[in-house]
Amino acid sequence: MNIPPSLERLVQELARLPGIGTKTAQRLAFSILRNDKARAAALAQAVLDVKEKIRFCAQCFGYAEQELCAICADPRREERVICVVEQPNDVYVIERSSAFRGRYHVLMGTISPLDGIGPDQLRLRELAQRIDANPVDELIVAVNPSIQGEATALHISRLLGGKVGRITRLARGMPVGANLEYTDDVTLNQAFAGRQVFSNA
Amino acid sequence: MNIPPSLERLVQELARLPGIGTKTAQRLAFSILRNDKARAAALAQAVLDVKEKIRFCAQCFGYAEQELCAICADPRREERVICVVEQPNDVYVIERSSAFRGRYHVLMGTISPLDGIGPDQLRLRELAQRIDANPVDELIVAVNPSIQGEATALHISRLLGGKVGRITRLARGMPVGANLEYTDDVTLNQAFAGRQVFSNA
Repeated sequence: MNIPPSLERLVQELARLPGIGTKTAQRLAFSILRNDKARAAALAQAVLDVKEKIRFCAQCFGYAEQELCAICADPRREERVICVVEQPNDVYVIERSSAFRGRYHVLMGTISPLDGIGPDQLRLRELAQRIDANPVDELIVAVNPSIQGEATALHISRLLGGKVGRITRLARGMPVGANLEYTDDVTLNQAFAGRQVFSNA
Repeated sequence: MNIPPSLERLVQELARLPGIGTKTAQRLAFSILRNDKARAAALAQAVLDVKEKIRFCAQCFGYAEQELCAICADPRREERVICVVEQPNDVYVIERSSAFRGRYHVLMGTISPLDGIGPDQLRLRELAQRIDANPVDELIVAVNPSIQGEATALHISRLLGGKVGRITRLARGMPVGANLEYTDDVTLNQAFAGRQVFSNA
């Protein structure tokens, strides 16, 4: 290819990122090369800073720059509802939707015996301690609707069922914009099982 | 969003890259955050290096780390054919195809009066000097088939027509995998005008 080594190395580093193939990595690398030096320096510094400054929140295990994340430190957030998610970035997916105003707890994975991940590898003990110290009315289990997610949700409901007012999970059904014809059978079954009565005036 | 500032800054920097929207930038930023520190450092260093080390080749104006690029410095490349392209990255597009084994010359743009770019802003004088110093048999004008590209190709053929054995341009016609029904009229006209005789045995 006769591509200069430093350009080739940037293409390789970019191509390691998820969803970035070689062609996209080349396009990005050429763009970085065409931009001015200050822009490249800002990107490089941002990459370093994110690894340097970000740690896990001591309470919820979401991403934080201080000991507590911005959500745990915010007194306006509803204290008596905790939403349990798998990964730190799931927090931002839910925050973006503005669907939830309570607190979070990040499990750092799901129960997955094949990968050697049991309940002890998750942040479940910390969740139990947190609930003991500050009782909550509701635990919303917002894990992904996968086999591992189901197993994890079941485990949580058994482990903490006695300690919390109620444990809920996100509704299953047809996503907005979906088409009956293309909806899979499991989702369709769940949509029927969870059907809701029209609230007429 | 309650996203930590350093993570937000990385998302913003990534979202400045072409074809990277906010959601993709978030996905990439989370991936950089999840990877180990050495990986992030390698990416940051690659971004800095590319701006630090790469300059324009003194002969062809492609990207180079030395005074001459790897292609200009390679004695095995055909010396008497020069392929003229618009931008440095066009070189790698052609190299990837292995369609060409000669030398390159990068114009650094195309004639575009609306953008205030005339022939003097392009590396045309350098091309003429290069040809004067080392005569060539053929100049392949591989600019993009746009209005600006056409104007540039015409200008080159007038400027250098007397100095070079022949000036050619890339064939126009239907791309591989195209469908007659969806081919635009201009391309179809060019495909008819440039039709070729079957060479039967």
